[in-house]
Amino acid sequence: MAEIRAVRWDDNALVLIDQTELPATETYVSCADVDHVVDAIVRLVVRGAPALGAVGGYGVAVALLQAERENWDTARRDSEIDRIRNARPTAVNLAWGVDRVRPFVADGVAAVLAEANRIAEEDEAANRELSRRGADWILANTDQRPLRVLTHCNTGSLATTAWGTALGIIRELNVRGEVEQVFADETRPLLQGSRLTSWELTHDQIPHVIQSDGAAASTILRGLVDVAIIGADRIARNGDTANKIGSVSVALACHAAGIPFVVAAPSSTVDLATASGDDIEIELRDGAEVIEFAGVRVAPDGAQGFNPAFDVTPARYISAIVTEQGVVEPAETPTVDELVAKEI
Amino acid sequence: MAEIRAVRWDDNALVLIDQTELPATETYVSCADVDHVVDAIVRLVVRGAPALGAVGGYGVAVALLQAERENWDTARRDSEIDRIRNARPTAVNLAWGVDRVRPFVADGVAAVLAEANRIAEEDEAANRELSRRGADWILANTDQRPLRVLTHCNTGSLATTAWGTALGIIRELNVRGEVEQVFADETRPLLQGSRLTSWELTHDQIPHVIQSDGAAASTILRGLVDVAIIGADRIARNGDTANKIGSVSVALACHAAGIPFVVAAPSSTVDLATASGDDIEIELRDGAEVIEFAGVRVAPDGAQGFNPAFDVTPARYISAIVTEQGVVEPAETPTVDELVAKEI
Repeated sequence: MAEIRAVRWDDNALVLIDQTELPATETYVSCADVDHVVDAIVRLVVRGAPALGAVGGYGVAVALLQAERENWDTARRDSEIDRIRNARPTAVNLAWGVDRVRPFVADGVAAVLAEANRIAEEDEAANRELSRRGADWILANTDQRPLRVLTHCNTGSLATTAWGTALGIIRELNVRGEVEQVFADETRPLLQGSRLTSWELTHDQIPHVIQSDGAAASTILRGLVDVAIIGADRIARNGDTANKIGSVSVALACHAAGIPFVVAAPSSTVDLATASGDDIEIELRDGAEVIEFAGVRVAPDGAQGFNPAFDVTPARYISAIVTEQGVVEPAETPTVDELVAKEI
Repeated sequence: MAEIRAVRWDDNALVLIDQTELPATETYVSCADVDHVVDAIVRLVVRGAPALGAVGGYGVAVALLQAERENWDTARRDSEIDRIRNARPTAVNLAWGVDRVRPFVADGVAAVLAEANRIAEEDEAANRELSRRGADWILANTDQRPLRVLTHCNTGSLATTAWGTALGIIRELNVRGEVEQVFADETRPLLQGSRLTSWELTHDQIPHVIQSDGAAASTILRGLVDVAIIGADRIARNGDTANKIGSVSVALACHAAGIPFVVAAPSSTVDLATASGDDIEIELRDGAEVIEFAGVRVAPDGAQGFNPAFDVTPARYISAIVTEQGVVEPAETPTVDELVAKEI
């Protein structure tokens, strides 16, 4: 999937592959003003915590160009940048990406763009490094060969600037010849597993099946899985991890079955300012996403959907958290300080 | 929902409400030959373990009438009856219903029909009794008032001959004024929660929201739920319980959160001939059910679905199993013998 870039800068605009249209059609959305950037984030045209880090950086560049065109004053410019920063509350990376390029705003668009490009390059490098570290840890902590791996949501090229996090580890294990089969949870309500993960796995010819999210616990308890690997939207200082709704259920099943549950993310996902999962705001999305699909309403008139987009897995159910900086086993180590890049 | 009968006998045929068409349209299917009975069972026009018990009984009557019309010999007649008996493997009630009317085959259709009607009447009476017992147990084992209840799949009038099992307990609690809110898992892949449970709860004006199956664990761990109540397709002698895929995930979350996880079923669901969950055959349905949604394919071409229809919840995660005969707490009592009717 080297040729696919979910997030790139082209012709003075942020260009995104429209993930709401995959796998049926591969279309690209060009965002040349703040409204389009925010809309793309909110509608999940682009999603995935690491990808949102780069979107935060490029989004500021979009805002600066619009500020020039429309003669915004500094207050307006800053409030428009904040609108991008706050478009989704749970993934820390979006705010992190905006904050990282902000010091360059005074130096102009070119300086902001250069920093946004660095975010994207570093993300890919981080993903490749964490994938090596994650694969090493998993091979050292499992016996079965080749491995049967379960994953939830999409954490591949589409969720990052390239390669992927949890799916990056699966790619790395596959390159090493160690993957027998992947169980991809479909990931309701928006089916990122069926639509996006399966698309990436198909592209890489990695053997896989798609299962309903409710099947994950049973597949694990029946002994069909050797390791579960997921991504993260925010990792608190104590190791509690916010990720796509359904993740904690996978963690509980791994805990019950005695197999490793691994969280993979770039260090930008670690938020030392958040003490624990209790302090993570969980985005509550429109209930219509649960009770409608492809324009077809499946519930009776008047019925309401309850649609938290994320859940929090307590650190005690996590076997290992992997970033490009290292691996922490939360049961052994009470904080994730060492997972954060030293220089930043 | 007193006027809805999912299963009834009318004009020499088995008449079923077509649950694949709900909630959009309320249509009825008339089954006057064995092919139609088997097709209705396999396609889930009728589903729900207790309802399948009555279908087993009435199905034999359909076979006898067809045998008369088409001059089948005894061997053909018996093999056609076996085809109904084995149309789905996991729910014990279907085979139980067939076996219960079989001794009356020699006495003719009227005798078989009379016994099938008794199955239906006894099922409703059992459901009402187990609902009272279940509500009593839950009120004695929870503190919060009114209760916030989570349920999975559909276990109401549509899954039984009338009233319901787990949903019957919710109805009983609601009649007693003790229900604040129900969380109904949507129940992928076939959405029995969104389509059927929400339809029944809407009819009874019981406040509820629909959530994706992956949200259940998080909703429970966040303290939003006081008790989870599910049905059963087969209860083994040691209390291990087969139920709709996704059930064991709810059980693990209840165990982690320290709230009761209650299984409700008529005693015909208890299978003393099955020693433990390891001996329960899990129906593997067509993977297409997972990778299609509302008739729309959501996965890439070539992707495969993995679609076990049921899972097994080990007895150690079950707080109480309720039948019309009583309540067993598996942690305290190693067998469910006392849940079975004494005379049968």
